[in-house]
Amino acid sequence: MASDHFSCSIGKDSVSKVEAGLDSSDIHGADIRFHGVVRKTEDDREISAIRYTFYQDMALQELEKIGADMTIAFPDHRAMVYHRVGEVTVGEASILIRVQTKHSAAAFEICREYLRRIKETVPIWKKPVFV
Amino acid sequence: MASDHFSCSIGKDSVSKVEAGLDSSDIHGADIRFHGVVRKTEDDREISAIRYTFYQDMALQELEKIGADMTIAFPDHRAMVYHRVGEVTVGEASILIRVQTKHSAAAFEICREYLRRIKETVPIWKKPVFV
Repeated sequence: MASDHFSCSIGKDSVSKVEAGLDSSDIHGADIRFHGVVRKTEDDREISAIRYTFYQDMALQELEKIGADMTIAFPDHRAMVYHRVGEVTVGEASILIRVQTKHSAAAFEICREYLRRIKETVPIWKKPVFV
Repeated sequence: MASDHFSCSIGKDSVSKVEAGLDSSDIHGADIRFHGVVRKTEDDREISAIRYTFYQDMALQELEKIGADMTIAFPDHRAMVYHRVGEVTVGEASILIRVQTKHSAAAFEICREYLRRIKETVPIWKKPVFV
């Protein structure tokens, strides 16, 4: 789903590949990119990766709903969310949330709120791959 | 200045070039990158760029001080700050603040606090280049 204000996708590409394709903006003075990275331990046990699975239609639908709600709550921002699925190795990012605003103050709050909502409601499941 | 916890630099390279050289981490689950971007208007007048000048020794010294203070205030984070100087064209970033934390909640607060302090005390001056 893509609009002027919000776009989202789910796929197997690395976050860095997706990020390389992002356009710049000359009307947004603040551009925040949040990366959620796979850490090397899960419940104090060493892991090599996390395998992400998702319920495709519902996950995208839920992301779109979050984007629509956030566009109403914070009209003056632009955001994109990318969630990687499949096996994501330790040290790599599984999610990218990019938020652009005219001024910096709002960007942190908006980005944090996207993350909170995504964690709460988007049906993407993680399964650690133990070493 | 570089330590395990904090590094900072000021230079003429683009932020994207600097960002391409960043290492990943397998102990930090949150990785935030704030880009401060040059917008196309300044005081309602169209500009083509902003020219940044700085008082080199004092600017680096002040960044180091902020890093040291922040490391005491928030011991469990890693950060790097890069400020670009010279002419930065509209749509390009003049500053990168990267903050890594184990969990996501703290990262936003810490990154925002770096930005606030840098704006407040680091002697880097901006002069718009009007079209």
